[in-house]
Amino acid sequence: MAEVKLFRTWSSPFALRIVWALEVKGIEYEMIYEDLSNKSSMLLQYNPVYKKVPVLLHKGKPISESLVILEYIEETWKSKTPSLLPEDPYQRAMARFWAKFGDDKILPLIWEAFIKQGKDQEEALVAVQENLKYLEVELRGKKFLGGDAVGFADLAFGCLANLVSVFEEVTGVTLIDREKFPLLLTWMLQKSEIPGLPVTN
Amino acid sequence: MAEVKLFRTWSSPFALRIVWALEVKGIEYEMIYEDLSNKSSMLLQYNPVYKKVPVLLHKGKPISESLVILEYIEETWKSKTPSLLPEDPYQRAMARFWAKFGDDKILPLIWEAFIKQGKDQEEALVAVQENLKYLEVELRGKKFLGGDAVGFADLAFGCLANLVSVFEEVTGVTLIDREKFPLLLTWMLQKSEIPGLPVTN
Repeated sequence: MAEVKLFRTWSSPFALRIVWALEVKGIEYEMIYEDLSNKSSMLLQYNPVYKKVPVLLHKGKPISESLVILEYIEETWKSKTPSLLPEDPYQRAMARFWAKFGDDKILPLIWEAFIKQGKDQEEALVAVQENLKYLEVELRGKKFLGGDAVGFADLAFGCLANLVSVFEEVTGVTLIDREKFPLLLTWMLQKSEIPGLPVTN
Repeated sequence: MAEVKLFRTWSSPFALRIVWALEVKGIEYEMIYEDLSNKSSMLLQYNPVYKKVPVLLHKGKPISESLVILEYIEETWKSKTPSLLPEDPYQRAMARFWAKFGDDKILPLIWEAFIKQGKDQEEALVAVQENLKYLEVELRGKKFLGGDAVGFADLAFGCLANLVSVFEEVTGVTLIDREKFPLLLTWMLQKSEIPGLPVTN
């Protein structure tokens, strides 16, 4: 039995965060694909509260909630580089703040813009872009949100590139244009340069 | 100028988490009370994204989001007991999971039950109690969610006692009855035994 197992689906952006974290740290793991229309008894047993992926199983113990799993991976395999969080408590707080900001603000707003139409969609788009501006500012003078290397917030936002391309293809609306978000676009493209990171999933 | 400042309101349950963390660790700080109908320029400057309390200012650097602040306090004053998080990565993950569960599930459901009426309120109440059962189970054989000592998840849920008493007084509905939630009720009452913890705020 593999020591590390990841319960995921093909499409969950939250599970992708864990795939990336395990890949960049070079941790061996087994993937278990769940069918959300017919969840396995293991998933229900390991995540009884939310019954959702991702769940990381390590030495038989389950952990759920993607940002909680990222912290666990960093703490359990601290010696494996790259570090997902810097040493400095303030920089760590900033990484956690931006990751949470993605979950609380950016992702729900993108979803809202995606499912709405007409004037409601336009308003949601304005809100998404207003919030993306904070990330654009945060990326000034940096290659990644984590600085020179990919870190906690980069992994948390990693799914943005995938979501944005799906969004733009389906709606025909440009969410992140080169003029307003040059740094964010560069950041999104850099993902493919990260060693060990799967480009597509 | 005080090295540590906390921007709060009288009533914010999220700010109370920080008050408790600073008190139990014995960290000196200055409180700055905000009037949310007339937010100070400092609050807007220190938390431009959410414009909300709590904000912790340490050596001139601002941190917002209460769970992020709790992590920062633990990491910055790690030698001050009690530790808010245990050493073991799995136990740390569990503490973070339950704290997040409070924010994502319990608090929104209590709010929903509070503002709704009639059948909608009854349904929301059922949902709150179903989720509170997880906490009741988690408290088996423990004094606190953190084990023998108050920890991260206890501070995150600390506001539950205040919210529940307000809820029960205003609605006349018992949310946490002794029969269904004996451990949770004992846990809520134990808060007043924690050294250094203000009983009322």
